[in-house]
Amino acid sequence: MLPSAITNAIEALSDLPGIGSRSAERLIFSLLRNESGLDRKIARAIGGLRENIRECKTCFHFCEGEHCVVCNNPGRDGRVICVVETPVDLVALERTHEFKGKYHVLHGVISPMNKVRPEDLRISPFFERVKRTSEIEEIVLAMSGNVEGDGTALFLSENLQRFFNGKITRLARGIPSGGDLDYLDVGTLSRAISERREF
Amino acid sequence: MLPSAITNAIEALSDLPGIGSRSAERLIFSLLRNESGLDRKIARAIGGLRENIRECKTCFHFCEGEHCVVCNNPGRDGRVICVVETPVDLVALERTHEFKGKYHVLHGVISPMNKVRPEDLRISPFFERVKRTSEIEEIVLAMSGNVEGDGTALFLSENLQRFFNGKITRLARGIPSGGDLDYLDVGTLSRAISERREF
Repeated sequence: MLPSAITNAIEALSDLPGIGSRSAERLIFSLLRNESGLDRKIARAIGGLRENIRECKTCFHFCEGEHCVVCNNPGRDGRVICVVETPVDLVALERTHEFKGKYHVLHGVISPMNKVRPEDLRISPFFERVKRTSEIEEIVLAMSGNVEGDGTALFLSENLQRFFNGKITRLARGIPSGGDLDYLDVGTLSRAISERREF
Repeated sequence: MLPSAITNAIEALSDLPGIGSRSAERLIFSLLRNESGLDRKIARAIGGLRENIRECKTCFHFCEGEHCVVCNNPGRDGRVICVVETPVDLVALERTHEFKGKYHVLHGVISPMNKVRPEDLRISPFFERVKRTSEIEEIVLAMSGNVEGDGTALFLSENLQRFFNGKITRLARGIPSGGDLDYLDVGTLSRAISERREF
């Protein structure tokens, strides 16, 4: 029904997670209707995505030079390291303006089901970094609140305790801001009760 | 927080309708994680989108050669022409396998609010086509069920009646398949009652 240039583009877009063939169709047709050159802009941006992207030599966040913007910032507190699963998580935490320390990006989470082992992540360079950086006083394990996140945090904390004498912390668990109690799942609610804090 | 190659790509993607900056972010990060070359595939497909795409000389559907697959198909019934707003609508109708005639694509809808006048659409080539094609017996106005679709259908039908003696029809209006009555809007429901048919 459609020229192959269009079906190819629809097919390529629908390989993205969360984009079904119908929404890919809608996006491609909107590109065909758009006269402002958005198609070329997107093609250029996505085509050049990997060209200048490296991982920071210290924390493995995405960056353009040797080190990322956080590691290069002399104002950040090197005594606290926050370990995150992905660069997106780092960006999300930075958006809160709540954390002033530095980061370490694992680029994934230990997952026996998906055959991701500790060796597949940036975990041993993290241990090396902790060993050689004497100023570190606290390590925040900011993993997701699911089974794999919990498992990865447990693995990290058990191994860190062998050579790291500072504090090991994790993100608070509880009800999300603005969340109605009756819409929350049992897991969230039971953590919120058991980890309740004094007013 | 992020290298400019990444922020550029996020910004370009979020110019697409229905893609906010957060989902653009998620898509770009999944491209960066994907090692199968999906980024290049998408860049190539979107970059080449317009290269080979033309509009069919007869019906203005997208095609690669002079005429589209529908117009080129000798099995299609040239006595019935279905007028649609966009190529997506044509594809949606073809998916039903219900219509055996030919099409005409307007590439839009008359919309005084968005400053789209009849001259901006493929309307006068449609009138020319109807005038010169004596075999046409029925014209189906398959516009959307909103104010602009209704207005465009009215405009077309009033003008067609001046020189076309065949049947002018439109899509049936009523409740959608599988739709619960209590979730439907008043407009749909009142059309469904007023256009009720015998069992």
